[in-house]
Amino acid sequence: MQLNAPLDMHLHLRDGEMLENIAKCSASTFSGAIIMPNLVPPVSTKEEVVAYKQRIIDAIGDERFTPYMTLFFKPTYDKAFLASVRDEITAIKLYPAGITTNSEGGVSGFDVEELRPTLEAMSELEIPLCVHGETNGFVMDREAEFVSIYERLATAFPKLKIIMEHITTKDSVEALDRFENLYATITLHHLIITLDDVAGGMLKPHLFCKPIAKRPHDRDALLKIALEAHPKVMFGSDSAPHPKHAKESCGCAAGVFTAPIALQVLTELFEKENAPLEKLQAFISGNAQNIYGVTPLAKTVILEKKRFTVPSDYNGVVPMYADETLAYSIKDVRD
Amino acid sequence: MQLNAPLDMHLHLRDGEMLENIAKCSASTFSGAIIMPNLVPPVSTKEEVVAYKQRIIDAIGDERFTPYMTLFFKPTYDKAFLASVRDEITAIKLYPAGITTNSEGGVSGFDVEELRPTLEAMSELEIPLCVHGETNGFVMDREAEFVSIYERLATAFPKLKIIMEHITTKDSVEALDRFENLYATITLHHLIITLDDVAGGMLKPHLFCKPIAKRPHDRDALLKIALEAHPKVMFGSDSAPHPKHAKESCGCAAGVFTAPIALQVLTELFEKENAPLEKLQAFISGNAQNIYGVTPLAKTVILEKKRFTVPSDYNGVVPMYADETLAYSIKDVRD
Repeated sequence: MQLNAPLDMHLHLRDGEMLENIAKCSASTFSGAIIMPNLVPPVSTKEEVVAYKQRIIDAIGDERFTPYMTLFFKPTYDKAFLASVRDEITAIKLYPAGITTNSEGGVSGFDVEELRPTLEAMSELEIPLCVHGETNGFVMDREAEFVSIYERLATAFPKLKIIMEHITTKDSVEALDRFENLYATITLHHLIITLDDVAGGMLKPHLFCKPIAKRPHDRDALLKIALEAHPKVMFGSDSAPHPKHAKESCGCAAGVFTAPIALQVLTELFEKENAPLEKLQAFISGNAQNIYGVTPLAKTVILEKKRFTVPSDYNGVVPMYADETLAYSIKDVRD
Repeated sequence: MQLNAPLDMHLHLRDGEMLENIAKCSASTFSGAIIMPNLVPPVSTKEEVVAYKQRIIDAIGDERFTPYMTLFFKPTYDKAFLASVRDEITAIKLYPAGITTNSEGGVSGFDVEELRPTLEAMSELEIPLCVHGETNGFVMDREAEFVSIYERLATAFPKLKIIMEHITTKDSVEALDRFENLYATITLHHLIITLDDVAGGMLKPHLFCKPIAKRPHDRDALLKIALEAHPKVMFGSDSAPHPKHAKESCGCAAGVFTAPIALQVLTELFEKENAPLEKLQAFISGNAQNIYGVTPLAKTVILEKKRFTVPSDYNGVVPMYADETLAYSIKDVRD
């Protein structure tokens, strides 16, 4: 079986040595990915986005792969600036301040009038807004509490495409259908795990992420819309590498590294749930093409039902399912 | 200020090298403690309980400290056996099968008729039943789901003292007052932390425990009855040492090590919350004496308001508040 032009619509490639170490884990199988801008400092000027893109291209070497670049949202971006950078970016990512890795410079409070100049300019320039939708409330409630902010933004800026990133709750799934301009990405791990997998038995730092995995009924709601390839949802791995020692320590960083195993596991999951291959194709690429209006590089990933034991680490980064055996392997990738 | 005869009504002292390493952390300040029996294999014969008690006495050296011994509950214990072991134990601890560290041999299902012979014999012999009250459901719901089992046991065995160990939820607090024969222990950490402290920022393995810390309203309910020294609640640290490497790894064991800092932190907490000292005295000793009918060894712990920086570890075990500074120090302990 084969997947055409897989896209990862939410990816952390980091920078420096980590970028060198993990960029090919995505670029070898995906046609392209939305690259998150939460570096230190965050990517927030044209020069930075151009330079970061070049570093990514250098790191992926001869792989055919499109890094769809993003800026780190600031309410100070004006229309002239956005117009000048429009051709270099695919979206802008908004982080509430302090909510996740390297988000200290994000937005505090969501005063529509304060955000209006930037968001109206984005709307006019057709730049989608990607949002990490969590409040600073109790960890299990943060995303559900943020839904009212999504609703406020979606109402105030009806022409702005707003992508609810890495949704984890039934509340977010239900919000999708209430507003025409709300879309969502879903990770691999949130289709599979709940808080029980993170903290129900032994504590599993490699499954610790933000937003944290929620309840079984949340996971089931996510899985349902992924399997039916709801036209407003796209795959976005949120694959977020940290060095092994930063995950297995007394203050473990948030993030699950799934880039190298995502396609194999999604194939197995959709098969197990009896979802037709065209639904996986839509979830992994077609929906994203429609929502973002992008045309990915041609790339065909051939998978075969042959056991694949996941390595313990990829250049020092422990992947989900490390040392476990998956049902599908990648047999070939054709450009 | 001083505390008299502090008692820890739920303590894990482990065995072997770990017992040697941490026994004095409790014995140097507490008059006595209920010692949990979940060794490998669990303490379940008279010989085992006598031998384990001796190993504890050897480990604590010249400290004046009473290990109140327990057996690991088995539904096969009959009245003759219980009568023969009565003088060696203070309580029997029931674990649902597989629910926490070394609990594989615990109870599956809670068929009152299957448990009746043992629980009626315990009732007649006035042996309290300590219970780890969690189902195998979703991690945030396990304790609340278990409340109906507590109610079933409390109703079926009205003369049996049932101690809901290390309660973490408002549901359990509310159950306390519905049944005359239900009592509870509360840990230090569950008076202070919620799931936010474990997994809301960075992941904190040293705060990972079972039952897992719950919501703010649960913590507030626990704190309220502790501060008022509700006569049916007692301090039980559930201090549960694991080696540092077992906590900071990719499958972190459950347990918070609080034995060496519990009295200092409780003193600070009760002061901060404006609870009178006699309430702390009742919570830390008086209530337990009334509930269990024990008379502890005389021991007076003198605390002073002098900063105390908690060590990084005690013989390789990382305590709660490691490397942080507490407001109170232990100035002296008088027998």
